[in-house]
Amino acid sequence: MIRIGIIGAGRIGRVHAEGIQGVRGAKVTAIADPLMNDETAAWAKSMEIPKVFHDHGEIIGDNNIDAVLICSSTNTHSAISLEAIEAGKHVFCEKPIDHDLDKIRSVLNALALTKTSVKYQVGFQRRFDHNFRAIRRGVQQGRVGDVHLVKITSRDPNPPSIPYVKVSGGLFLDMTIHDFDMVRYLSGAEVTEVSAYGAVLVDPAIGEAGDIDTAAVTLKLTSGGLAVIDNSRRAIFGHDQRAEVFGSKGALSSFNDSGSNVAFSDAEGVHSEPPLFFFLERYMQAYRDEIASFVNAIETDSETEVTANDGLQPVLIGLAARKSLLEHRPVKVEEIT
Amino acid sequence: MIRIGIIGAGRIGRVHAEGIQGVRGAKVTAIADPLMNDETAAWAKSMEIPKVFHDHGEIIGDNNIDAVLICSSTNTHSAISLEAIEAGKHVFCEKPIDHDLDKIRSVLNALALTKTSVKYQVGFQRRFDHNFRAIRRGVQQGRVGDVHLVKITSRDPNPPSIPYVKVSGGLFLDMTIHDFDMVRYLSGAEVTEVSAYGAVLVDPAIGEAGDIDTAAVTLKLTSGGLAVIDNSRRAIFGHDQRAEVFGSKGALSSFNDSGSNVAFSDAEGVHSEPPLFFFLERYMQAYRDEIASFVNAIETDSETEVTANDGLQPVLIGLAARKSLLEHRPVKVEEIT
Amino acid sequence: MIRIGIIGAGRIGRVHAEGIQGVRGAKVTAIADPLMNDETAAWAKSMEIPKVFHDHGEIIGDNNIDAVLICSSTNTHSAISLEAIEAGKHVFCEKPIDHDLDKIRSVLNALALTKTSVKYQVGFQRRFDHNFRAIRRGVQQGRVGDVHLVKITSRDPNPPSIPYVKVSGGLFLDMTIHDFDMVRYLSGAEVTEVSAYGAVLVDPAIGEAGDIDTAAVTLKLTSGGLAVIDNSRRAIFGHDQRAEVFGSKGALSSFNDSGSNVAFSDAEGVHSEPPLFFFLERYMQAYRDEIASFVNAIETDSETEVTANDGLQPVLIGLAARKSLLEHRPVKVEEIT
Amino acid sequence: MIRIGIIGAGRIGRVHAEGIQGVRGAKVTAIADPLMNDETAAWAKSMEIPKVFHDHGEIIGDNNIDAVLICSSTNTHSAISLEAIEAGKHVFCEKPIDHDLDKIRSVLNALALTKTSVKYQVGFQRRFDHNFRAIRRGVQQGRVGDVHLVKITSRDPNPPSIPYVKVSGGLFLDMTIHDFDMVRYLSGAEVTEVSAYGAVLVDPAIGEAGDIDTAAVTLKLTSGGLAVIDNSRRAIFGHDQRAEVFGSKGALSSFNDSGSNVAFSDAEGVHSEPPLFFFLERYMQAYRDEIASFVNAIETDSETEVTANDGLQPVLIGLAARKSLLEHRPVKVEEIT
Repeated sequence: MIRIGIIGAGRIGRVHAEGIQGVRGAKVTAIADPLMNDETAAWAKSMEIPKVFHDHGEIIGDNNIDAVLICSSTNTHSAISLEAIEAGKHVFCEKPIDHDLDKIRSVLNALALTKTSVKYQVGFQRRFDHNFRAIRRGVQQGRVGDVHLVKITSRDPNPPSIPYVKVSGGLFLDMTIHDFDMVRYLSGAEVTEVSAYGAVLVDPAIGEAGDIDTAAVTLKLTSGGLAVIDNSRRAIFGHDQRAEVFGSKGALSSFNDSGSNVAFSDAEGVHSEPPLFFFLERYMQAYRDEIASFVNAIETDSETEVTANDGLQPVLIGLAARKSLLEHRPVKVEEIT
Repeated sequence: MIRIGIIGAGRIGRVHAEGIQGVRGAKVTAIADPLMNDETAAWAKSMEIPKVFHDHGEIIGDNNIDAVLICSSTNTHSAISLEAIEAGKHVFCEKPIDHDLDKIRSVLNALALTKTSVKYQVGFQRRFDHNFRAIRRGVQQGRVGDVHLVKITSRDPNPPSIPYVKVSGGLFLDMTIHDFDMVRYLSGAEVTEVSAYGAVLVDPAIGEAGDIDTAAVTLKLTSGGLAVIDNSRRAIFGHDQRAEVFGSKGALSSFNDSGSNVAFSDAEGVHSEPPLFFFLERYMQAYRDEIASFVNAIETDSETEVTANDGLQPVLIGLAARKSLLEHRPVKVEEIT
Repeated sequence: MIRIGIIGAGRIGRVHAEGIQGVRGAKVTAIADPLMNDETAAWAKSMEIPKVFHDHGEIIGDNNIDAVLICSSTNTHSAISLEAIEAGKHVFCEKPIDHDLDKIRSVLNALALTKTSVKYQVGFQRRFDHNFRAIRRGVQQGRVGDVHLVKITSRDPNPPSIPYVKVSGGLFLDMTIHDFDMVRYLSGAEVTEVSAYGAVLVDPAIGEAGDIDTAAVTLKLTSGGLAVIDNSRRAIFGHDQRAEVFGSKGALSSFNDSGSNVAFSDAEGVHSEPPLFFFLERYMQAYRDEIASFVNAIETDSETEVTANDGLQPVLIGLAARKSLLEHRPVKVEEIT
Repeated sequence: MIRIGIIGAGRIGRVHAEGIQGVRGAKVTAIADPLMNDETAAWAKSMEIPKVFHDHGEIIGDNNIDAVLICSSTNTHSAISLEAIEAGKHVFCEKPIDHDLDKIRSVLNALALTKTSVKYQVGFQRRFDHNFRAIRRGVQQGRVGDVHLVKITSRDPNPPSIPYVKVSGGLFLDMTIHDFDMVRYLSGAEVTEVSAYGAVLVDPAIGEAGDIDTAAVTLKLTSGGLAVIDNSRRAIFGHDQRAEVFGSKGALSSFNDSGSNVAFSDAEGVHSEPPLFFFLERYMQAYRDEIASFVNAIETDSETEVTANDGLQPVLIGLAARKSLLEHRPVKVEEIT
């Protein structure tokens, strides 16, 4: 039984606490949050989590805890990662490790230097989504042959708040980062160059906050293939999450998931449900499966499915995309240092 | 060039006149209608049909005409068929040949006795629909293995007028007759027994006229398999025409056709076009192709794809269905004589 | 917290034990099985079920247990139901309550006479399937208007063993019973008459065992509408579970669920995953939700969503179907007493 | 009756000759081709085209001809256009008018100066495809609100021959030109800037011929929106022709057309037909409708649906795309002069 401590009792921390209930061989034994209060403690009790703390150090220092889930605010991810690695705990860290390359690299260095077999997994949960996973499997089986083009459509149902936009690192590091990871995951190749276009079409306040809300990004891959990503901060019809890998032998395409597949026909046409609106609905299965995968990596002493390097690469691509947008030119990823 | 005379300038006669324009090797050289008037003559002229008559005998007697299309009212089909066969003309006869078994059989007898190689085809145009034809082809290729179940959903967008209902022969001989033919066409088997349920749910006036407007019919096939047909005189969303053949190795299913495949997504869901509403839209390609097939049978001196016997069998099944409904019991087709 | 005892540790008992892990407010505190052995006890331990018994009487007599799940063999359902009701425990009973009408009625009588507010729910889990539930919701909202026709396609991926066939009560009581329930659930009407056709097409041994493996059943509803069910014991492509409700204002149709919605295009065509093959995959969400609904009925002291009468009606219809097949005629449900 | 002369009896000339048979109010009265031979003359006779010529001047000079279809090789389009305009004939000119901007502009000038009401239409047939047209209609009706993103997927089933590649003007002017037109057509906006990525992934010989076979192009629109096009010279599964317009109120998406919508289910999955393989199959309806539209513009003396300016703009965008690829930077369309 892997004993898990969750650091951060906000939305994503709770999602994981609930998801772990369906994961065999793992149990949450402690949760810490600097804002721990009666409501959160009551929730933790209802989840049968025995210990609650304000200070995440209590979890890091607990010898009866095998692994930590870092679900705190982004600016604490790398520091807590270092503490946990130092303490010999397995780490599941929500994305991104950081927006600062040096901080991410300090985590990679700590992992390289540690003498214990610490597992480290980054929270790119979409890799565990049943649809994207089926594409990946098909690509690896050679069904599409050589990969010529990866297409990702990724649109949120609603833009975040303007205060969040200001600290988010910008669309490319906050939102497209998932798609950069997806391009790597689906193609099995690395990204060498980025050409980014952006626009402010959803809400002018996003532009005033220095960000964009709509983007089209073209990527060059080490394999010679291309990738195209389109993003919007607001698809009125829900969380629009589709991918296609096109190659010499065929194409694999995924579509959105809905609450049911029921079609209603009337005089106006045939109507089906919109895509699942919220990312928690769409990716609930993925959130559960990523933790199951993390637990499995610990139990079998094998590499995690999303390594620290997988946490680093999309940040490099995201920084290249930001530079491309600012300088209005294609930018090679190797320009980012 | 096969020279065709059309007998009957009503809706279906005009559909064929227009369809033939796209058929290589055939041309309409005359059209006859007892109600021939200036409007119809003008239309014929616009279609470049050189001769117009009141009396269909002018067509039967014209040595420069190779084949006739019988598109007149149902009660004239068998008599005109006999005249045309006697005159050595190839015959394409709209369905049904007749509702009276003796009259149908007189046509089969005439064909058996004729010394010339007269071609005779019945107008079950759905056999030429691209979707149903693809199912048939798959069944014949053995893709579904042994046929266990044929399912036909067949619903009209609007009920006919009450006067028409009264002379239509009833739902089973007017509407389901197409589906009885489709069961034979898709399964490659004959029907041995019928169990029919009916209801008046669309319009009470249909019930007052002695007919039903909703039906569920179960059929036993010579192969041992079963078939299920459901009918309605009014599907508010359009012409609902689907089929499925299920067997030991798999299933082939067809769906409705629409004007475009465009999907519109908004907050309420994903919306696509309703099925093509009217049978002339849905089956225009089939109407053209059935004539092309008829012309080809003449040119190559081969059997037509819908023989006079194919015209007889669905009437037998329809009469059995009518008897089943009236007597509230399963009826064997061989009971119908 | 509702404390649950599970009676029967076979496949379905374990499915429920696992499903309950995702149900808030409920926990399994005991499990009993006459064949309880080390393997089962170890499994129970891994599920953190504190007590294991051979004798289900230990659960019935345990004052710390609020509700029982009867997952034992069918012939014990009604007797254990009576014991549990007598003991004032809430009962979730797997379908069917029994094949014997008197035994089912004894349960209904016991419920009518009990002075405590005992909840009783029958395990028709398909009512909780997201697709069927969406159809039901649409029908209740009036989207299809008056219900003219209900169509159920229900095919298993593989026939049961011949020994099972012999004790199953026959296809109509073993398999179609779910579809009879679904007709009632989707239409909101009762069934008045049944006309059943059957065939042995999948495996002659099923016929030798006195059963059929393929069926087409037509039903008359109190509302005047009709229903059509088709069954097969073997759909080579998986668990084929679809429904359609057609009415005066439109139609609601559901399709099969697959593991992913990924489409693969190659020179042969566009290929997607087959339906989920096994009923446990297809209905896992439904198994969890039916227990959540049962727990909710207890917590809120409201009627369960599948009452004992909902357990009785499909057996009546099933017996009528059996009689219809044997006597080769339509049979009214009121003939079954 | 509009009397049409076709100039060029190659593949596309014949496609139009056949398509016109289904167009009311038009008839082909002459066809000219410098390579006119017995086979072509026989074909023309079978099509009931009365006159055949070697010299297109015979058509230009024929007072009994109202309109010409220019279906000759691309390098003759602008010169013949000028001759026909001079002669007062309506002109339908296959795309492109030319690759040389001066030559295109000479046609625009001639049209501006002509005193007769000469109609001029360019052969972007995809505007008449039922799917793309349905998207356009929805956009114009305001269904998607403000257009944020246009996505075009456009892939050919097979690359052209290498000799053709060498004279084609390159992928952007030969193939993507249709997609540039489609972006304008669907969005209702003009293109201001182009950023093009290309690769040689299908056949190295295409690269050796100085061209690319795979492309991803991003466009900026006057409306502020973006557009993304992806191209391949070979989609093994057929002619892949899809579009999506995403905006503030929703999205409209079109999919590929197939020969039938039949789905075959077996143990491996659910299989449907590939997209129509060849552009003549996919766009036959569009080829017919574009001529019907041209005829209608003549009859009603209204503007054609694809003007000479609509012929110019995609060439400008294509030249910008070529420059972007060569100079590895975004290029404004106004840079092209």
